[in-house]
Amino acid sequence: MTLSAKSQDLLDRRAKLLGPNVSTFYDEPIHVVKGEGVWLWDADGRKYLDCYNNVPHVGHCNPRVVEAIHRQASTLNVHTRYLHEGILDYVERLTSTFDDSLSTAIMTCTGSEANDIALRMATAVTGKRGVIATDATYHGNTTAVSQLSRSNVPGTGIGDHVRFVPAPDSYRPLGSEGGMAHAELFAEKLREEIEALEKSEYGFSAFILCPFFLNEAFPDLPQGWLKSAFDAARKAGGLIICDEVQPGFGRLGSHFWGHQKQGVMPDIVTMGKPMANGHPVGAVVTQTDIIAAFRKSFRYFNTFGGNPVSCAAAMAVLDELQDRSLMDNAHTVGAYAKQRLLDLQEKHEQIGDVRGSGLVFGAELVLDRGTKEPATSYANKLVNEMRQRGIILSKLGRHYNMLKIRPPMPFSRENADLLFDHLDEVLASLPMDAPS
Amino acid sequence: MTLSAKSQDLLDRRAKLLGPNVSTFYDEPIHVVKGEGVWLWDADGRKYLDCYNNVPHVGHCNPRVVEAIHRQASTLNVHTRYLHEGILDYVERLTSTFDDSLSTAIMTCTGSEANDIALRMATAVTGKRGVIATDATYHGNTTAVSQLSRSNVPGTGIGDHVRFVPAPDSYRPLGSEGGMAHAELFAEKLREEIEALEKSEYGFSAFILCPFFLNEAFPDLPQGWLKSAFDAARKAGGLIICDEVQPGFGRLGSHFWGHQKQGVMPDIVTMGKPMANGHPVGAVVTQTDIIAAFRKSFRYFNTFGGNPVSCAAAMAVLDELQDRSLMDNAHTVGAYAKQRLLDLQEKHEQIGDVRGSGLVFGAELVLDRGTKEPATSYANKLVNEMRQRGIILSKLGRHYNMLKIRPPMPFSRENADLLFDHLDEVLASLPMDAPS
Repeated sequence: MTLSAKSQDLLDRRAKLLGPNVSTFYDEPIHVVKGEGVWLWDADGRKYLDCYNNVPHVGHCNPRVVEAIHRQASTLNVHTRYLHEGILDYVERLTSTFDDSLSTAIMTCTGSEANDIALRMATAVTGKRGVIATDATYHGNTTAVSQLSRSNVPGTGIGDHVRFVPAPDSYRPLGSEGGMAHAELFAEKLREEIEALEKSEYGFSAFILCPFFLNEAFPDLPQGWLKSAFDAARKAGGLIICDEVQPGFGRLGSHFWGHQKQGVMPDIVTMGKPMANGHPVGAVVTQTDIIAAFRKSFRYFNTFGGNPVSCAAAMAVLDELQDRSLMDNAHTVGAYAKQRLLDLQEKHEQIGDVRGSGLVFGAELVLDRGTKEPATSYANKLVNEMRQRGIILSKLGRHYNMLKIRPPMPFSRENADLLFDHLDEVLASLPMDAPS
Repeated sequence: MTLSAKSQDLLDRRAKLLGPNVSTFYDEPIHVVKGEGVWLWDADGRKYLDCYNNVPHVGHCNPRVVEAIHRQASTLNVHTRYLHEGILDYVERLTSTFDDSLSTAIMTCTGSEANDIALRMATAVTGKRGVIATDATYHGNTTAVSQLSRSNVPGTGIGDHVRFVPAPDSYRPLGSEGGMAHAELFAEKLREEIEALEKSEYGFSAFILCPFFLNEAFPDLPQGWLKSAFDAARKAGGLIICDEVQPGFGRLGSHFWGHQKQGVMPDIVTMGKPMANGHPVGAVVTQTDIIAAFRKSFRYFNTFGGNPVSCAAAMAVLDELQDRSLMDNAHTVGAYAKQRLLDLQEKHEQIGDVRGSGLVFGAELVLDRGTKEPATSYANKLVNEMRQRGIILSKLGRHYNMLKIRPPMPFSRENADLLFDHLDEVLASLPMDAPS
């Protein structure tokens, strides 16, 4: 791959100014200069269909969000030790999307900060420190939270207070059984880890999960699949933290939050990325007794968290979602896209499985449908080929062979057609690797 | 104190939506609606001179910063896995304000995130975890960083890997000796804690401090005062982290960074609050070998960190500082303000000591100049009385008896006159507490 002189220069400057190992997407990174709706443009004026970015939830440079930021930044931006309606109006509106029990919030700047607080809330309530997470996910970048990511092990290793259970995989289920049998095995694994923690010096404080297991290639799970696991965690006195950074804010089409789709009730919900369309905003939503326990044990203040501009940006996102019925759009366009992916599966042997909900969907690429051997290297080539064709998507999952298609919420049928027309051609033309 | 119905309603909503113990400033919190330059307005149209807020560094709602945010938010806002000049131009400009050895950076959303990374950098380089901080400061709110604040002890206590040395106090120096004798005693205390950590399972990894000891009532220290302590930390193989969240960006008038004023060289510098005038931006600046060690041991990605809007806002702050010579303004107005405070000290027995540099200055209020007994409750009454007169300031330090005056950088002589005319009247009229 030969890079343009300009791109090479930017990469050189990155290495010098930002240090080594700062990853970019694609063999030939995109030098972006402009965004609008579901589109990005590079420095050469080339247009890309963005089928990947969830942070610009209501579209790149959404005018309503930009205007809200501009208006509030021109008027007032201070911390929350003065009184201001912004944070109150927003938290009221945000919590109205949850069960009545989840009625209070702490505003932060990032999802990482939100998860960092959630862990301390669980400690404040239980007096314990042990945490159980699923084994191929990511919950953020602080010292405490980065301990939860076995996919991203810090150089200092993971503390013994963190234990892992295997994330569900509907294509290759635990014990080879899918559906509710798989659910019981998952709950059993959780009980084992709870017991181990309870026997340790740490005790069991919290079970944290993405309720859609989005980083873990979003397995197809029947509603209620999580019930046994949640029951096990509750019975042991632990708190359940749902990390809704990715599935939240209507992304799944059918429900505003991932845990609602699963039909389960967490004690604490964390959120970030899409919350204010790229403005740095995150939050923890929880019950009054849990926030009271946290506020009693930990003095917490976040200078930028919940400031008037952040709340105006976040409120504009909720307004856009509602006024443009973007969750419904995710539902209908998502269903159409999934059907188109299923049609491609009929044609192309490489597609082993098609999964997703609303505007997060993908295809698991395999070398052989019988053995389900992951086509990891092929998926990488395909993603790079799509980028060369002006379609931005990525891959994820334990084997990095699952196409990750997670566009901004205003994604249309026409956008989906463009995506799949190219995908069809690439699947037809890109030579498949041989099974090992 | 009777609150207006509106303020009481906002406080009730805060308790319901944000939980208990979410502190506000003043007995009668201000319901802010508008900001401009050094001024804030409340909902009743009352104007306040802001002598406290350092986050709106180049003035509340600075038009150039607002315009930079608006322009970039309208154009593009994505994460750093694509190529974009914004972060590179900014980091180049930012690092040019440091010694040549401090040439690389990681951009974050908050100063807390920056300190959280800095601790891991020290661990990556030294392979050790023990940290020494000063005993009355604050470095941020993540699980790891909140361990460093003895002024803010988490319910779970402080880990044994964190040790403290007494922050310098030029008014009540260690061993009763000021100046360089005090510096030697401080270094000796540091050596003791280093030795204790080295004997423990943790080892000595880092010494973290605000080089101006701003939260610790900014003692008057001669240049070079920190040299012995820095030598001791270096000799023991630890890294030195200067938390420049408060003294940085020209605040001290004489130097752009607090450590430059002290004439010492840190290995890592962290920053946040004023960096982008309220837009959530922080950073860690360090040497190439340290960033390389960190990037090798820890995979770190921050979704919002270093995005084009954050960098545009931060760049506009540097532009404003430069084009309006705001560091020079801090120097001259700060010197004028300090002289006015010294004049007040001649008149008012309550002022035991006057300290500061540039646009952070204050007076230590005492019940008796001989015993130096802190006038803590009096300082609280005075701050509330000033608020009633439309002057926003606060108090800080180990005894909360030091007036904290830290206005936005465009603060003028006229602003200082208004502040001190009121302060003079309040000192004359507010009855002093009797010594105990």
